[in-house]
Order: sequence, then structure tokens, then C-alpha cells
Amino acid sequence: MNYCNQCGGKVNWQIPDGEDRHRYVCEHCNIIHYQNPRMVAGAIPIMDGKILLCRRAIEPRRGMWTIPAGYLENGESVEQCARRETMEEALAHLDDMLPYSLLNITFIDQVYFIYRARLVNTDFRPGNESLEVQLFHPDEIPWDEIAFPVIRKALEFYYNDQLENRFPFREIDIPASEKL
Amino acid sequence: MNYCNQCGGKVNWQIPDGEDRHRYVCEHCNIIHYQNPRMVAGAIPIMDGKILLCRRAIEPRRGMWTIPAGYLENGESVEQCARRETMEEALAHLDDMLPYSLLNITFIDQVYFIYRARLVNTDFRPGNESLEVQLFHPDEIPWDEIAFPVIRKALEFYYNDQLENRFPFREIDIPASEKL
Repeated sequence: MNYCNQCGGKVNWQIPDGEDRHRYVCEHCNIIHYQNPRMVAGAIPIMDGKILLCRRAIEPRRGMWTIPAGYLENGESVEQCARRETMEEALAHLDDMLPYSLLNITFIDQVYFIYRARLVNTDFRPGNESLEVQLFHPDEIPWDEIAFPVIRKALEFYYNDQLENRFPFREIDIPASEKL
Repeated sequence: MNYCNQCGGKVNWQIPDGEDRHRYVCEHCNIIHYQNPRMVAGAIPIMDGKILLCRRAIEPRRGMWTIPAGYLENGESVEQCARRETMEEALAHLDDMLPYSLLNITFIDQVYFIYRARLVNTDFRPGNESLEVQLFHPDEIPWDEIAFPVIRKALEFYYNDQLENRFPFREIDIPASEKL
């Protein structure tokens, strides 16, 4: 950040009065520009015990598999976001959304919130951001071709929990050693 | 937003190519300035069945009661944020953090994530942002003096769940009719 988005003045990286950490502060209008993590919402779409995965048509990790997920937009709830992303990436409808996992990626300032959800029917097909979408039995998940560590971790939670048919809410920090 | 924080150029409110919603786009360097909801993390600190509440020393809602909560900062996990806010507002230590509720406030672009947590000891006292901190039996919660609808809803979840000693993960959208 170089300039104030309110007045166009130059910003400085400094600790504002009464605060304990550095922020961008405008030297002209003195406004403090707070920066905060972004939230990603996603879903593990499930039908007859199988999971719907999408093969990415876009970078990064084009050609790798993922679950539907994307940035939370202003004005929508976390659940609405997970439904929207599933529609955009797999043209698929979800129902029975169950909160399942919170995954922190502190080194890139992202928080993932993942639902388990019921895939309503087989009328799905690739959206613009997907090359293909396909149902996988848990034993067929292409572990070596999963796009991101955070998605692999969410799928590992699901894989292990479905073996015991118990799905407690899961929470984890993705270690920086798994940096992309 | 009036200016690009990268190059200082003017921004326009427009739908970028390939997108489906309005964004601020710089007319000089063409960068898209995405805006996303902010996350708030908090905790319901519990000791011997009682809940620790803080009376706000700052606006808005100075003098009203709340649980420790605040904006998630870059570089920290949601759980770390809830612990930090509890330390800042009540100088209190938490343990056994249990994910409990997700509350969407879509009309102000905020998402609250609330833990249940064990208050480690009675060595708590008001931080800079609190006038006082006090343990309340659930039947003594000052419902008419709770600072925000989202906090009242989290406390209602807890109040009802503690009656049955069952605490499933709770999720809700705060209706715009409860706008501050």
C-alpha cells in the first residue's frame, strides 16, 4: 500500500497512537487503513458416500483437484458463499449444509470455513473455473493431485471421520512448512 | 474508496471483465480492489457455570455488557484472536477453546466466530477497553444491557444449550431488522 484510498495522500507504515502494531496511516488525512484476513467458504458435496471434486481450469494449480470454495463476498453469509461457489465451479446444488471445519492459513492471512453438504442431484457439470467435475469414493480420492494443502487437510478430516461415521467440528492451523 | 492505494490513480465502481459484480477498479493501473467481510473472533469465558462479561469503556455502546471479541488480525488464527481479545479486554486467560458459533452480519460485512472456553482462574480485571469485568450466573445475564444483537444471540445460544448441557455448533444470520 502506497497511497490513501480516501484522499490520495501518501501512507506510512507506523504504530498508531494507542495501538500495539504497525498499520498503514495516511500522512495527509490521518486515517488508519486496517488490513485483515480474508475468509474462504467451501463445501464437501456428498452423494451416496461419494465426494464431488472439481479439476481446476485456472491458475494456480491448474489441472489439480479441489472442492468448491472461494472468497466470501460482502453482503453474503458464509453458507451462501459455499453454495454460490459450488454453483459457479460445478453447477451443483447443495442442501443440508453442516458446519464442519475451520482451517487457518496465517502465513497468507486466510481463514477457510468448510461445510459438509448433500449434493442434491447428479445434474452437475464443469463451470468456467473447472475442467471437469467428478464423484469420488473416499478410497479413490486423488491425494497426490489435490490443489492445496488446506483442501487436502479438509478431505483428510472427512476421510477419517466417515470411517467412523462421526463428524465433530474440526479446527486446525495449516503449518507454514506446507506453504505453497 | 476514491483512489488506488497502489498507484494513487482514481478508481471507478464498475463490473470488471469476466466478473459478475461491481468492484473498485483503478483507471490508471487497472488493478481491482477486492473488498471482503471482516472476521470477529470472541469467546464465552466460563468458570463454575458462570460467564465472564465485560462492561464497555469505549463507544459504541459504552457502559453496555459484552463478551471478549474483536477483529481478526493478519498473522493470527481465529483461536489466537479470541484469546488475545480476552486478554486485552479482561486480562483473563482461557483454556479448552471449543468452537461454538458462527454468526453472519451481512448488512455490515462481518462474520463472528465464537468459542466456549474455560476461564483458567479468577485473576481477571478490566483492560483498557472495559469499565468492569464480572462473572454472571446464566440466570443473572443482564439481557437488556447487552451491547450488540450478535452478542445477545451468542449468549442466548449458550443460555439455552447449558440448560440441556448439549452444545452443538450453532450458526445464524443476524437479521437486518436488528441493525444497530
